[in-house]
Amino acid sequence: MCDNGLIKTIHGHHSHLGWDNAIAPAAHVAPGTRLTFACNDSSGGHFTPTSDASAVADMPFDRINPVTGPIFVDGAEPGDILVVHIDDFTPSGFGWTANIPGFGLLADQFETPALALWHYDTHTMTPAAFGTHARVPLKPFAGTLGVAPAAPGTHSIVPPRRVGGNLDVRDIGAGSTLYLPVEVAGALFSIGDTHAAQGDGEVCGTALESAMDVSLRLDLIKQTPLAMPRFSTPGPVTRHLDGAGYEVFTGVGPDLMEGARQALSGAIEWLIKTRDMPAEQAYMLCSVCGDLRINEIVDMPNWVVSFYVPRIVFE
Amino acid sequence: MCDNGLIKTIHGHHSHLGWDNAIAPAAHVAPGTRLTFACNDSSGGHFTPTSDASAVADMPFDRINPVTGPIFVDGAEPGDILVVHIDDFTPSGFGWTANIPGFGLLADQFETPALALWHYDTHTMTPAAFGTHARVPLKPFAGTLGVAPAAPGTHSIVPPRRVGGNLDVRDIGAGSTLYLPVEVAGALFSIGDTHAAQGDGEVCGTALESAMDVSLRLDLIKQTPLAMPRFSTPGPVTRHLDGAGYEVFTGVGPDLMEGARQALSGAIEWLIKTRDMPAEQAYMLCSVCGDLRINEIVDMPNWVVSFYVPRIVFE
Repeated sequence: MCDNGLIKTIHGHHSHLGWDNAIAPAAHVAPGTRLTFACNDSSGGHFTPTSDASAVADMPFDRINPVTGPIFVDGAEPGDILVVHIDDFTPSGFGWTANIPGFGLLADQFETPALALWHYDTHTMTPAAFGTHARVPLKPFAGTLGVAPAAPGTHSIVPPRRVGGNLDVRDIGAGSTLYLPVEVAGALFSIGDTHAAQGDGEVCGTALESAMDVSLRLDLIKQTPLAMPRFSTPGPVTRHLDGAGYEVFTGVGPDLMEGARQALSGAIEWLIKTRDMPAEQAYMLCSVCGDLRINEIVDMPNWVVSFYVPRIVFE
Repeated sequence: MCDNGLIKTIHGHHSHLGWDNAIAPAAHVAPGTRLTFACNDSSGGHFTPTSDASAVADMPFDRINPVTGPIFVDGAEPGDILVVHIDDFTPSGFGWTANIPGFGLLADQFETPALALWHYDTHTMTPAAFGTHARVPLKPFAGTLGVAPAAPGTHSIVPPRRVGGNLDVRDIGAGSTLYLPVEVAGALFSIGDTHAAQGDGEVCGTALESAMDVSLRLDLIKQTPLAMPRFSTPGPVTRHLDGAGYEVFTGVGPDLMEGARQALSGAIEWLIKTRDMPAEQAYMLCSVCGDLRINEIVDMPNWVVSFYVPRIVFE
């Protein structure tokens, strides 16, 4: 950790693998301090530019999704709101996407490990090549950002919770502000799981996973109820994707989860048929650029969930 | 019906109240014919510029959501796809939004009838005033468009199905193309339930409901499997809403429906607190402009559903 009085850098070796309010803070900071976090990728560096699909089977599941932190915010108390101002990202230029058997919205249909490696230009941040199949617009964000739960013990890093965590919300990008309910003294904020691109849903279970540094400021709103995380975005959230319109696939029925699966299946079938893509590649492409939306949730007993494939990735 | 050889107009008296493949066609048309449908609003004209909330209790539920049609498309057979090219809309300028007890995502919490009336400029289509609370950008579409199911008898108009119907998909606007699986000879296409504005989800159960004419062309793709409706959009779908960014409220947990309810509740609480809106007004405003999205559906066992309130409605 370096500390010049204005900026603190929290290095990647200050990382932890679950949420636990007994973990010693990596730093104590005053509200408003600008912090830069070095975030490892969600494999903890397991995947490298020479990895192939065989490396998926070797993934160290007991060490996935390390987060950098925790940060003790002076004066934070249970009942406060921690305000996270996301300033900017310094991406690494290398990333990966995997189909990990047992994980993902269509895990029952995609049982074969697959791995895609990405190299992207950190200066221009132009759309990144997904093999020869597509070029995916980039928008960096941190998949995991949260504070320690009040409940004692170590809680898995995988599911998000009321206190945040593995939210995987693509739209919490640079310039956004996230509000999290504080449950323990100091809040104990951590961040990681940085993504260079993801669609709403993160349907195959992984995004364009990529190590990067994140700069942000932490502030407090004292003693104000907040049931669930909320955030605000400074402007549009999908203009990097929407310029060429969408091909959209619906799932119509009484169960939102099944509707989401139907919609995604329609998109994958279409990609296989019209873009000549292998099924696993189509599934992974959907995960990094396609969006799940609920178009209608009131026309009893059937709801409409749709999967939006942005045509810009083929231009 | 008038027919000049190029354009057919299907008048509003050619309407029906359920899906039934025994209903006599309003017209037989060749593929490619340009058709203009006069669509009544989903109350069948029950609400007028002088209506108040007491009219909600009098709604004729046995006559809601009339659709104009059906159209017999020459040559259409089961196993074909009906291609619906949506050309344009001629809106009426008057509309309504209601909280109808028993209907809507938070029906258990909103038991009091409410009605909002809208007047909008059909030439400029500038954002329409929602009382003194907000101004809502307009984007016309038909909430209900579908073909007759193969199963005999009359099927309720309320739920959407594999063959379309009450899809309530905001993004099937002018320039979009909808693909529907044909289940009976002639397809028997009908359309109605036109909306001048709606958010993804249509959370209170009604949109900016408004009579309008819809022009479209029907084509066929012969003998091609299609499990569920799909559509393509010619360009962006939310740029009328996204210019000023969003306030976003999450629901985190193992059930998508409960997550959607939590997210919407967060939005309504925020509107009540920060915009000084009565609860029913906040609920109806959410329905006409806010979007439900599934941000993450893979981080077992908790998913993230969010409700996006576009700040542009307050500018």
